[in-house]
Amino acid sequence: MCGIFGVTHSAEASYLTYLGLHALQHRGEEAAGITSSNGKHCIRVVRAGLVDEGMTPDVLKGLAGDFAIGHTRYSTSGGSLERNAQPLMAHNTAMGELAIAHNGNIPGYRKLREAFQKKGALFYTDSDTEVLLVAIVQELQHRLHNGVKSTPELLGECISRALAPIEGAYSLLMLTRDFLVAVRDPWGFRPLALGRLKDSDALASETNAFDLIGAKFERDIKPGEILILPRRGNPRSFFITAKNASAKVGPQPCIFELVYFARPDSSLFGRDAYWARREMGRQLAQEAPVKDADCVVPVPDSATVQALGYAERLKLPLEVGLVRSHYIGRTFIAPHQTIRDFSARLKLNPVRGLLRGKKVVLIDDSIVRGTTSRKIVRLIREVGGAKEIHMRIASPPVKWPCFYGIDMPTKKELIASQRSVEEIQKFLGVDSLKYLSLKGLLQASGGSDGSFCHACFSGQYKIAQKAVRESLNCEALGTRH
Amino acid sequence: MCGIFGVTHSAEASYLTYLGLHALQHRGEEAAGITSSNGKHCIRVVRAGLVDEGMTPDVLKGLAGDFAIGHTRYSTSGGSLERNAQPLMAHNTAMGELAIAHNGNIPGYRKLREAFQKKGALFYTDSDTEVLLVAIVQELQHRLHNGVKSTPELLGECISRALAPIEGAYSLLMLTRDFLVAVRDPWGFRPLALGRLKDSDALASETNAFDLIGAKFERDIKPGEILILPRRGNPRSFFITAKNASAKVGPQPCIFELVYFARPDSSLFGRDAYWARREMGRQLAQEAPVKDADCVVPVPDSATVQALGYAERLKLPLEVGLVRSHYIGRTFIAPHQTIRDFSARLKLNPVRGLLRGKKVVLIDDSIVRGTTSRKIVRLIREVGGAKEIHMRIASPPVKWPCFYGIDMPTKKELIASQRSVEEIQKFLGVDSLKYLSLKGLLQASGGSDGSFCHACFSGQYKIAQKAVRESLNCEALGTRH
Amino acid sequence: MCGIFGVTHSAEASYLTYLGLHALQHRGEEAAGITSSNGKHCIRVVRAGLVDEGMTPDVLKGLAGDFAIGHTRYSTSGGSLERNAQPLMAHNTAMGELAIAHNGNIPGYRKLREAFQKKGALFYTDSDTEVLLVAIVQELQHRLHNGVKSTPELLGECISRALAPIEGAYSLLMLTRDFLVAVRDPWGFRPLALGRLKDSDALASETNAFDLIGAKFERDIKPGEILILPRRGNPRSFFITAKNASAKVGPQPCIFELVYFARPDSSLFGRDAYWARREMGRQLAQEAPVKDADCVVPVPDSATVQALGYAERLKLPLEVGLVRSHYIGRTFIAPHQTIRDFSARLKLNPVRGLLRGKKVVLIDDSIVRGTTSRKIVRLIREVGGAKEIHMRIASPPVKWPCFYGIDMPTKKELIASQRSVEEIQKFLGVDSLKYLSLKGLLQASGGSDGSFCHACFSGQYKIAQKAVRESLNCEALGTRH
Amino acid sequence: MCGIFGVTHSAEASYLTYLGLHALQHRGEEAAGITSSNGKHCIRVVRAGLVDEGMTPDVLKGLAGDFAIGHTRYSTSGGSLERNAQPLMAHNTAMGELAIAHNGNIPGYRKLREAFQKKGALFYTDSDTEVLLVAIVQELQHRLHNGVKSTPELLGECISRALAPIEGAYSLLMLTRDFLVAVRDPWGFRPLALGRLKDSDALASETNAFDLIGAKFERDIKPGEILILPRRGNPRSFFITAKNASAKVGPQPCIFELVYFARPDSSLFGRDAYWARREMGRQLAQEAPVKDADCVVPVPDSATVQALGYAERLKLPLEVGLVRSHYIGRTFIAPHQTIRDFSARLKLNPVRGLLRGKKVVLIDDSIVRGTTSRKIVRLIREVGGAKEIHMRIASPPVKWPCFYGIDMPTKKELIASQRSVEEIQKFLGVDSLKYLSLKGLLQASGGSDGSFCHACFSGQYKIAQKAVRESLNCEALGTRH
Repeated sequence: MCGIFGVTHSAEASYLTYLGLHALQHRGEEAAGITSSNGKHCIRVVRAGLVDEGMTPDVLKGLAGDFAIGHTRYSTSGGSLERNAQPLMAHNTAMGELAIAHNGNIPGYRKLREAFQKKGALFYTDSDTEVLLVAIVQELQHRLHNGVKSTPELLGECISRALAPIEGAYSLLMLTRDFLVAVRDPWGFRPLALGRLKDSDALASETNAFDLIGAKFERDIKPGEILILPRRGNPRSFFITAKNASAKVGPQPCIFELVYFARPDSSLFGRDAYWARREMGRQLAQEAPVKDADCVVPVPDSATVQALGYAERLKLPLEVGLVRSHYIGRTFIAPHQTIRDFSARLKLNPVRGLLRGKKVVLIDDSIVRGTTSRKIVRLIREVGGAKEIHMRIASPPVKWPCFYGIDMPTKKELIASQRSVEEIQKFLGVDSLKYLSLKGLLQASGGSDGSFCHACFSGQYKIAQKAVRESLNCEALGTRH
Repeated sequence: MCGIFGVTHSAEASYLTYLGLHALQHRGEEAAGITSSNGKHCIRVVRAGLVDEGMTPDVLKGLAGDFAIGHTRYSTSGGSLERNAQPLMAHNTAMGELAIAHNGNIPGYRKLREAFQKKGALFYTDSDTEVLLVAIVQELQHRLHNGVKSTPELLGECISRALAPIEGAYSLLMLTRDFLVAVRDPWGFRPLALGRLKDSDALASETNAFDLIGAKFERDIKPGEILILPRRGNPRSFFITAKNASAKVGPQPCIFELVYFARPDSSLFGRDAYWARREMGRQLAQEAPVKDADCVVPVPDSATVQALGYAERLKLPLEVGLVRSHYIGRTFIAPHQTIRDFSARLKLNPVRGLLRGKKVVLIDDSIVRGTTSRKIVRLIREVGGAKEIHMRIASPPVKWPCFYGIDMPTKKELIASQRSVEEIQKFLGVDSLKYLSLKGLLQASGGSDGSFCHACFSGQYKIAQKAVRESLNCEALGTRH
Repeated sequence: MCGIFGVTHSAEASYLTYLGLHALQHRGEEAAGITSSNGKHCIRVVRAGLVDEGMTPDVLKGLAGDFAIGHTRYSTSGGSLERNAQPLMAHNTAMGELAIAHNGNIPGYRKLREAFQKKGALFYTDSDTEVLLVAIVQELQHRLHNGVKSTPELLGECISRALAPIEGAYSLLMLTRDFLVAVRDPWGFRPLALGRLKDSDALASETNAFDLIGAKFERDIKPGEILILPRRGNPRSFFITAKNASAKVGPQPCIFELVYFARPDSSLFGRDAYWARREMGRQLAQEAPVKDADCVVPVPDSATVQALGYAERLKLPLEVGLVRSHYIGRTFIAPHQTIRDFSARLKLNPVRGLLRGKKVVLIDDSIVRGTTSRKIVRLIREVGGAKEIHMRIASPPVKWPCFYGIDMPTKKELIASQRSVEEIQKFLGVDSLKYLSLKGLLQASGGSDGSFCHACFSGQYKIAQKAVRESLNCEALGTRH
Repeated sequence: MCGIFGVTHSAEASYLTYLGLHALQHRGEEAAGITSSNGKHCIRVVRAGLVDEGMTPDVLKGLAGDFAIGHTRYSTSGGSLERNAQPLMAHNTAMGELAIAHNGNIPGYRKLREAFQKKGALFYTDSDTEVLLVAIVQELQHRLHNGVKSTPELLGECISRALAPIEGAYSLLMLTRDFLVAVRDPWGFRPLALGRLKDSDALASETNAFDLIGAKFERDIKPGEILILPRRGNPRSFFITAKNASAKVGPQPCIFELVYFARPDSSLFGRDAYWARREMGRQLAQEAPVKDADCVVPVPDSATVQALGYAERLKLPLEVGLVRSHYIGRTFIAPHQTIRDFSARLKLNPVRGLLRGKKVVLIDDSIVRGTTSRKIVRLIREVGGAKEIHMRIASPPVKWPCFYGIDMPTKKELIASQRSVEEIQKFLGVDSLKYLSLKGLLQASGGSDGSFCHACFSGQYKIAQKAVRESLNCEALGTRH
């Protein structure tokens, strides 16, 4: 997962991008990068760590210009920072520097890369983003090298042609000396919203970034849309036409964004995350009530809203029975001697006394590996002293890995892919365990079966099917590329 | 405010202290320090910033020994770090190195210091803690200089004699090569708890520190108690006898710890903070209900438990209408252009849509200056779109500064000291404003009028009255020392 | 200017490379980079600053493998570090990762780049090195893409073909998972030596790097040689055949390396720098003696050896009249108030009293801009109190910029290009000024007119003449690309 | 060893002190500290490492005021930085803050400390400097506590009284809000000079610090002098009268400053270090010539001037046969595999070829432990290929530790204390070894037997004899306190 942000026509473009990335920090804590443009050149700085850590006043001062785009990146191992950092930037293209920031994933990018390599392209990174960049730059080089003027039309056409054959998930921001471009893949897997702040256009993965800088949410970028914001002149929209079978697959917004990933105060895919989650909780209460429970306890902060909905529906008292530490998110020295369930203790602490002898409903948004859940359950039992723990999950079992941009473990590591609900219940050590049904989830999210990508729950991968199948096979064979 | 932690008889003493300080991080984010002892020497390291930032693996490795004490410090301006860092450590005393970590405040320490200076003492800092240290070391020097053996009895007597004449708030941890000592002033202003982890004794300002390291809470250190934990032999308790009038004043545990300061998962003064806060919310609902409200919204995270109690009592729906960012707590680059209410936006964001057109009850634990509250109210009104905002505060108006260890602004800066409730309501821009009564607060906290220090609400300063009066006069005259 | 170092078959390859770069630190202080290979992958780390600063123990630990190459870079402005850092590394080529480290300069690289761009190549940097990399990788892609095995022959042929059309100065080290390759351009502008340490081959810009790690100097890499060192099997040499007119130009080793750049304890181009410099001093004494001088004073440390030769020849006493500070080389805070000649004072201080009232011969190796020399002369006059200062330069006037890898200012900034010797004498404020003749320099260096590149003194650019002419014209027109 | 610097009446006092400390960096590389005064308060910052590393622009900006003093400290283990950092500063004394910076050593400080402790003083460090500080502050407290005005007379009298009973080496700078004070012990062990820069007085351990900032050397502070520079009014000098026997001992300037420690461009004790060293070389040539030698090679940079004198006297050619690296002085990663004589190789490299087959005279200023000399000899033999190496030392054998401020190893570690010259010659692996006689050294230094402290060569400790004897006994018994 990643977060992307961009802004035009502002003397403080880099600073606003820094704030925007800060608001999107939950989408990626490992690295942050900003590229700014002053109409002549683009400057790019990338740093490991949180936005606030890497983007120091000195760095921001160096990022001159009135257009900027930025990127926060999720978990890639430290060593490869320098290679995979974003925005990526090509130098000396037909339009000068061209930077790109990408949220999403292209399942078949290795095949695409080989094709470009045969034609003579060099690759400096191992990322799918570079493939998108090469595709677009080559298209530009083709059309522009004879002193042809770079118009929005030409740029739109180039991007449209370059991306049309590519299947996968991509919300993109691009920056050249003259243009800021926002793109969303034809299926709209990942969110991307347009906002307005005085004379500036702003673009963000999630709308809470607009709130921080005082911008007004205008609309979502449409699936397949290429929005070109020139330094001078009006914005122009173009559209990518997907090819072949994939053209017939409708919108595939990622339901997991609503379940877990997005901030509760964000709107995306035309929905408020908060309301969707409250509804998931209510639906869960209807599908899987616990009788005579003493209280409902959320795993904070990601399941608090769902727990509100659950408790309200069943008129059970809600208790903030797990206190979350505010000081996590940085490297922590591992203890030499074993402190049982230490990683969970660092983040969460049960309120002593509150749960002693109680029959507790524990609400979480989802279970991925199950290891953290097990530790939390044990803390509630041992430190908190709960008598019965009934776990309720406000989404279906996660059985399939995501190939469209959510960072998930392999199939083998997904507990629900390997064990039955009963076995998971045993593994977690809870007195009962129930999940929300897929139907219930879709209903709570305000959509029907066809209106979301829910492959992680259902295994129904609709785009780049061949590449996905190969990846799944590789994994089955124990090879990971 | 500060947090203190100590541990005995553990090969990982410094590491456990580091974890303990991490759990007490909310009591002070400005600096952290640890002193360890290996039976021969004490080593001391102090660093600016959060515990995780300053206490790196290299630092911890250098802090050898099986006894350790630590300190986290609240907000003192950067420049003076080196002077005022804690633990403070005297070198070459009659017992070798002697380190001290202090949570509290001694109102009349300047007078005491002058007396010591006349007798020839030097001071390297401007802190009250150094006065305590000098008092104790001089007493030790007196008794021990002729090769007298340093027994717990002798040490207890020295500390008792040194502290008996001193009026003020102090929970102390001290460390020498042979002993770890825990002390609480005769009035018990600040908390200090004893825990047990295998063969080790642990001491902490709050019990949540025990949960993190897997220790068991044993008991509170008693007001006036001097608990001496020797490297070899049994723990011994001694008691300080306060002098003169102050001897007659009973326990004065700080009620503001329960209102705001302590973590909700801590027990202190024999009470669970969580239950006390829930009760404050219920009591507030009874004293100041809002009719026909659409929902109850807490200012997170400090008023969430109170809001639960309030909503439950009135059977109103609770909504997490303000989302708190997880990434605050570090230096943030100030924006050049004005973003209205920026400092509040960085921390909190109203959930769009959720509150639109609603009649909202906004719950907070207390109001100090009122400036942050005003920004939050404005965010809820402007970004959130609430129709009516009724603010309810789960404690009485804060009218008096604290001289016993809570870091509070001067009387002039306390909004309730300068304005009536009606004026504050206007200032905040809310439709109504009500506070919990002192009586209600005491009742919710499970005590009567005499069982707490509530000077910040009532102005009833019972200890070090002369020094307090002088400080209040200075402030009135516009001089602050 | 840059320094390059590489080593094969050593469990400490990265560490030895770190030491080698440290020995070559004088060739570039701005950034350092190392790429290591473990037979499967190449890892690359690049850091701003001195080798010791950037290449920390943690960094070196991460650079696993038994083959490694490294690079130290001279003065490029900070912002562009991330773009222009070396070794450059292509990912996913026909031979996996391919890293390149370059010492030299390709005058016409922009033209070459355009040609590659037309064929579809992307560029991530603005450096000539990337052009070399693209040329080689494309050649490899061509020959290897159908599962053809990568043999030394094939690699040698690819590199030879790729580089044959390129005119300019390049000493290169390349690393893939299977091979370390050393290349020197057909004219041998820059040095590159081969050494031996137990089972390892070592390669270094200068031989003093071998001394530090205890390696034995074997031989210089020959002009045009491609030496391929495979992980398994014997080393193989191939040769580049330059094209067209340039093929007829003989060896062009840079005489400025002997004059100033190389360390005095290095051997290069089959000569000892020390002896060459001593000879330059002797020759200078013969050509430009100073009668009745009291003493000879070198500008330390670069002209000390020349001054020895000068003093010896004329039987004049040598005095270390300028003391050089050991603590320079890091960023220094600029003074707010003017301290006259501050930048010179920071580095050098005249020995008070030693020169008072004396007739001094001041020896320097060369004058580039003349500004530093002027400050030094003033210090000797004002602080040192010298009566007469006769400056003698152990090389001819530098009148032409270098396009083959020495970092020099533009023609306009070269004082000898703009002013006569008489005018320079006046500008410097010396009583007399004389330079060594080109003939004398060549003789001292043990060569004739055709055996060195001396374009900076003579303007005789023999390679890439067209590109050089264009660059000179641009400069004349005030445009610099 | 340490360096101290101070300046009055300058808007850039802290910046000038930073420059002054930079010039004195060779006297201590481990830590640097500055205290500035603005007439109201003193601010103190201390940092580990070189002056340039710790004293960043931000730090200097924080050190407001027009008076400042600073200190660079030699080699104390890292852990104790915070305790032993200088300037030391007392807070809230009768004159407000009082900071002290000390170059020297008080052999019997532990006894003095005990006496103060019995009177009730606390010590925060283990340093002799704190004893001086306590002595002075207590004297001040005595005289000033009743509102008596702090005049230069009073201050001079207090300092004089406080220091009169103390035997040892101390050059001091002190700073209060109103005064900068310079003090030199009655025997003048350590240098301290007064300079003038416009309206400012400057004070420095060595005169090269004046050159850097453009100040003019005025005079040495006299042995026993207390020079008080008030913010307003004229400077005043007072004198310390030593007590008892020590009063009869005349000046004891440290001859080792001239031999090795001071920069060659400094004047101290009324002598130019450069001339003294040149004379030592000439004298050495006379006492211990080498016949038929091919060349004279100095160990750079400390013996270069001596080698000049030696070579000149015997009309032998001087060769810079060892090249010193400019990049040492920072932490270096230790090699895992053995590189023989690595630590010497890092610093020095013999010029290949230059010494091959030659009969070499190797000049050094002194031998302390002998281990580095042995490595250098081996490098010259093995890498350089010298046939014969005749070592000549421009001072007598160092047989006794220094108790007056030079950081030297214990007697056991001094090679000349444990072995005869013949044995040392064998240990070093040289063909012959000769030292300068003490008489020759004194003559070269322009003094007679009574005009210097030469205890390290002669064992004649004249001051604090009792404490010195006890220290020597402790060492003999294997105990070090």
